[in-house]
Amino acid sequence: MTRESDFIAALRAIATHPAARGLADDAAVLPLSGDIVLTHDMLVEGVHFLPGDTAQDVAWKLVAVNLSDLAAKGAVPVGLLMGYGFAGGPGWDADFAAGLDHAVRAFAVPLLGGDTVAMPAGAPRTLGLTAIGQAPAGGAPSRAGARAGDDLWATGTIGDAGLGLAIALGDRTGPAALLRRYHRPQPRLAFGQAIATSVAAMADISDGLLIDAGRMATASGLAIAVDLAAIPLSDDLLSIQPDNRPTRIAAATAGDDYELLFAAPPSAEAAIRAIAAEHGLPVARVGAFTAGTGIALRDGATAVALPGRLGFEHGPVA
Amino acid sequence: MTRESDFIAALRAIATHPAARGLADDAAVLPLSGDIVLTHDMLVEGVHFLPGDTAQDVAWKLVAVNLSDLAAKGAVPVGLLMGYGFAGGPGWDADFAAGLDHAVRAFAVPLLGGDTVAMPAGAPRTLGLTAIGQAPAGGAPSRAGARAGDDLWATGTIGDAGLGLAIALGDRTGPAALLRRYHRPQPRLAFGQAIATSVAAMADISDGLLIDAGRMATASGLAIAVDLAAIPLSDDLLSIQPDNRPTRIAAATAGDDYELLFAAPPSAEAAIRAIAAEHGLPVARVGAFTAGTGIALRDGATAVALPGRLGFEHGPVA
Repeated sequence: MTRESDFIAALRAIATHPAARGLADDAAVLPLSGDIVLTHDMLVEGVHFLPGDTAQDVAWKLVAVNLSDLAAKGAVPVGLLMGYGFAGGPGWDADFAAGLDHAVRAFAVPLLGGDTVAMPAGAPRTLGLTAIGQAPAGGAPSRAGARAGDDLWATGTIGDAGLGLAIALGDRTGPAALLRRYHRPQPRLAFGQAIATSVAAMADISDGLLIDAGRMATASGLAIAVDLAAIPLSDDLLSIQPDNRPTRIAAATAGDDYELLFAAPPSAEAAIRAIAAEHGLPVARVGAFTAGTGIALRDGATAVALPGRLGFEHGPVA
Repeated sequence: MTRESDFIAALRAIATHPAARGLADDAAVLPLSGDIVLTHDMLVEGVHFLPGDTAQDVAWKLVAVNLSDLAAKGAVPVGLLMGYGFAGGPGWDADFAAGLDHAVRAFAVPLLGGDTVAMPAGAPRTLGLTAIGQAPAGGAPSRAGARAGDDLWATGTIGDAGLGLAIALGDRTGPAALLRRYHRPQPRLAFGQAIATSVAAMADISDGLLIDAGRMATASGLAIAVDLAAIPLSDDLLSIQPDNRPTRIAAATAGDDYELLFAAPPSAEAAIRAIAAEHGLPVARVGAFTAGTGIALRDGATAVALPGRLGFEHGPVA
């Protein structure tokens, strides 16, 4: 597949939902009702993915990072629109279409429309995706709802994707599971939907736990204290890193985890642990919100200076 | 403004609608109800706009071409999400933000969210926009609804933007109004909303009247006969082109007009002309649908061979 028309034909085969109108109309038309959650994230070759990443992995990531934003709002995905910069080259676009087909089936979310444009020769592949979701009945939690006294929780394990990136770059060697965490992020959709009404604020961890926790605190008009010792690390990560403070700081400032970060009062602990158990997803209390501003870092009982870099600064606008 | 953070601050000043959540959340949250119209179009430097085009014109065009898709479905715009490849350079991004602010005010449509990403050095500016609209109460017309015996109508005048592009490229000289038709397309939102319940099918003319009419016919399972003599040409166009067959073929195959093309039964003529008069927008009957397939071209009473090129082939997917 080297022609744009072949790629569009492959997209038509994916976009079978009636709202997509066969990708033959000016727009998609989808019946909706209630609070609708809308997000748009881009991936650019050489910035968000490596030229050597497989097209299937890039397709997965494009879908997964957008659905992670919906997960952070407790939303059920209802549709996708894609903007695709067609750059040609043997196999890449066909592989991307196959990966996209796989991803939309895995997440049961229909491709509804978008645009395919020919990029100038030599331009990086540039992809955009808009994800549309249905907010939970109780409303979509914001980043700004944390209250003083709330705990800060994180799902899953932190820092795996950062090490996966180092492995992808050839800077490290390590278990394939870490590389997979980088290439195949898993948006916490089911958990996000289940927990949405129990949280005061929620966001996903895309740019790093510390920076994303700091943003939640700032948006909520509060300070946040984060305990490095409480940050959950995977056995895979600990198989190539010693369990010490530099490892925990690296994990807390690495991006691409796409775990959820949420604020909830201490009284919600039992409910949170029950939902986590039901979904087979570990959760950890990694901090607490207090009156004030800024981020305070500790490692168990020891106060720790904030690292110079809290995470990726070039986060999504929304 | 040379920093991405300054650009994001400028976007925050534009995105004042509550659903945008200050561009500080993972996603926008907008209450909606009914049939929602969704479209996403990209603009790439060197492909869809010229390196010398002003940032304000590019911002206008990005909004206008997406809203034109909504106009073709009779929809009322309710929000925009933008994907912006930040490339830096003195003034461009600040000028773009100013142009975007102007456009969203002109069309009264809120910017709700999106993503800003740093492009690699030397990469073309790459922009995407998702436009969300509310379909008319009677439903959004499709491209596929034309019936044998329906007339094909076009709004406005055709071919002006094509000549405007030639002027922008320095290949021609001519009235500034033609250049403006290319740089500042006017989506026919009010007319599209008013006419939606009177039409059998509707689309916008983005790739060329002939190719877009052909797509409507194909989608509807019909043939279309187009009369070159009926294609409305502006006085500005006729000030630099003779009124002959090559001029009319050039107009019918030029893109970027962003006029509306619609099918309606002959019985709807009076209603169509009344709505056009009310909106001060000329309309012209430029063809008719019949059983069969393909495009038949004539110039008054004379059959004319189809030109080799019907318009731009790289149209939007949806």
